[in-house]
Amino acid sequence: MQGPMKRVLVIGGAGMIGRKLAERLVKDGKVGGEEIGALTLHDVVPPAAPAGARFKTECVTSDLSAPGEAEKLMAGRPDLIFHLAAIVSGEAEADFEKGYRINLDGSRRLFEAVRKVGGGYQPRLVFTSSIAVFGAPFPEAIGDEFLNAPLTSYGTQKAIGELLLSDYSRRGFFDGVGIRLPTICVRPGKPNKAASGFFSNIIREPLAGHEAVLPVTEAVMHWHASPRSAVGFLTHAASLTREELGPRVNLTMPGVACTVGEQIAALRRVAGETVVARIRREPDAAIIKIASASPTRS
Amino acid sequence: MQGPMKRVLVIGGAGMIGRKLAERLVKDGKVGGEEIGALTLHDVVPPAAPAGARFKTECVTSDLSAPGEAEKLMAGRPDLIFHLAAIVSGEAEADFEKGYRINLDGSRRLFEAVRKVGGGYQPRLVFTSSIAVFGAPFPEAIGDEFLNAPLTSYGTQKAIGELLLSDYSRRGFFDGVGIRLPTICVRPGKPNKAASGFFSNIIREPLAGHEAVLPVTEAVMHWHASPRSAVGFLTHAASLTREELGPRVNLTMPGVACTVGEQIAALRRVAGETVVARIRREPDAAIIKIASASPTRS
Repeated sequence: MQGPMKRVLVIGGAGMIGRKLAERLVKDGKVGGEEIGALTLHDVVPPAAPAGARFKTECVTSDLSAPGEAEKLMAGRPDLIFHLAAIVSGEAEADFEKGYRINLDGSRRLFEAVRKVGGGYQPRLVFTSSIAVFGAPFPEAIGDEFLNAPLTSYGTQKAIGELLLSDYSRRGFFDGVGIRLPTICVRPGKPNKAASGFFSNIIREPLAGHEAVLPVTEAVMHWHASPRSAVGFLTHAASLTREELGPRVNLTMPGVACTVGEQIAALRRVAGETVVARIRREPDAAIIKIASASPTRS
Repeated sequence: MQGPMKRVLVIGGAGMIGRKLAERLVKDGKVGGEEIGALTLHDVVPPAAPAGARFKTECVTSDLSAPGEAEKLMAGRPDLIFHLAAIVSGEAEADFEKGYRINLDGSRRLFEAVRKVGGGYQPRLVFTSSIAVFGAPFPEAIGDEFLNAPLTSYGTQKAIGELLLSDYSRRGFFDGVGIRLPTICVRPGKPNKAASGFFSNIIREPLAGHEAVLPVTEAVMHWHASPRSAVGFLTHAASLTREELGPRVNLTMPGVACTVGEQIAALRRVAGETVVARIRREPDAAIIKIASASPTRS
């Protein structure tokens, strides 16, 4: 075996992206061109390590936003940290205090724990941000220099996380990369509290024979990336050199922009009218408001 | 007397801008078209109330970043809050923890204290931000939609303050306006730890018969507003309606853009070569770095 074995920590390892990322790491056995020596999955609910790993895996359950918990995760001195843990947009909007505690204080506690290790410790830290950092009025397409003017508490918390990531990286406390994910579609599993959940629900549920609620009009446009693409963004972020990154470390990810109407037309082409008929229109003022404050394409 | 008497709180009331703002409020007796009924000046060092006020004045000294202190300031239910308190750029860069404690945690404790009053309490809150929220590479002139990508910890803390101000305002917890001040020049008094202090020092000190240190080259361009203009920005911000403000509540203030060489040429025209000769060139790598990361004109 050549070179050091990489120790990897995934925070938010029980979430949809976290689980898929862990599966990919176990399958590949390496990340950023280096062999993985150990993988720790952390979440506030018990994560499960994928079977078949050729390296040590460990699962840890704790509340990252509680004092002292982030410090414990530093005991293993991970070389690569994926920070995916967050309260989703709908929940952060509904519960102001919880959103700030998990999405802002949790991230800050992690960043502080890394900083306080000291002694030249400088892991790569991949932070999942969101296109919710952008707010209307939007240009037709969002460029790399569009301002962060979020219109939700979730977007505000992610934008603050980006600013901290950038400053801690500039100071040399860690080597951060922020990945602004577009809406992940089609999300597997059950509907969650993300306000953008319907983009997946209207495809996944009718195909499984279930009814799905469409809370917005068919004119709503948005851009999407598949779960597999999201995992690809994260592993690629882990492998970028500082020179490839450049001075601005928070990056908007690409995706496919389409309207809800175009999504439904695609479903009709693939699965027919019977499946499409399982989509029930039920306008929801709260979700319409969040959707209208969301960017349409990069 | 018509209408309610406005209760005004100035946080950072012992600082240069805070003192001048207090003098202006006492002189005018009103702000935003309404009579002032009471003025509280707060700072971590004892502020002094200007003489001659036709309303009640009070001075309070405490550490805003200490738990419970912001809540005490809400006891008087101020209708208008000016939040000017901050650690300056040079000090925030030299002392990472102090900068975040005062500039981020202090502001957040204030915002939380206002939010927790509840019961329909929604004061106007004028927050002093800074053009340090912008970072290189810059366009030739910075427009209203230029992104916040600060290159100092001070700029990061101010950008986070702006994001919180915007989200708390959107939520209706207060009615915020963020005022991005350019460098204030000529600052009166003694040199402080602001990295931008030399812009004032090279004018003020030679005129007073003292030597001044110029730590950057004459090619450095920057934009400036006088202390009187800064106070005008703040009282104007206090009087804007929500409709006049629009959806984005953090605003970049105008100023005069010139190079250090042009500043020195102006000093020569007004005061002659003997005065200019009191400027001593002494390059300072830390200040050159901050100056090169600062925007040049709006």
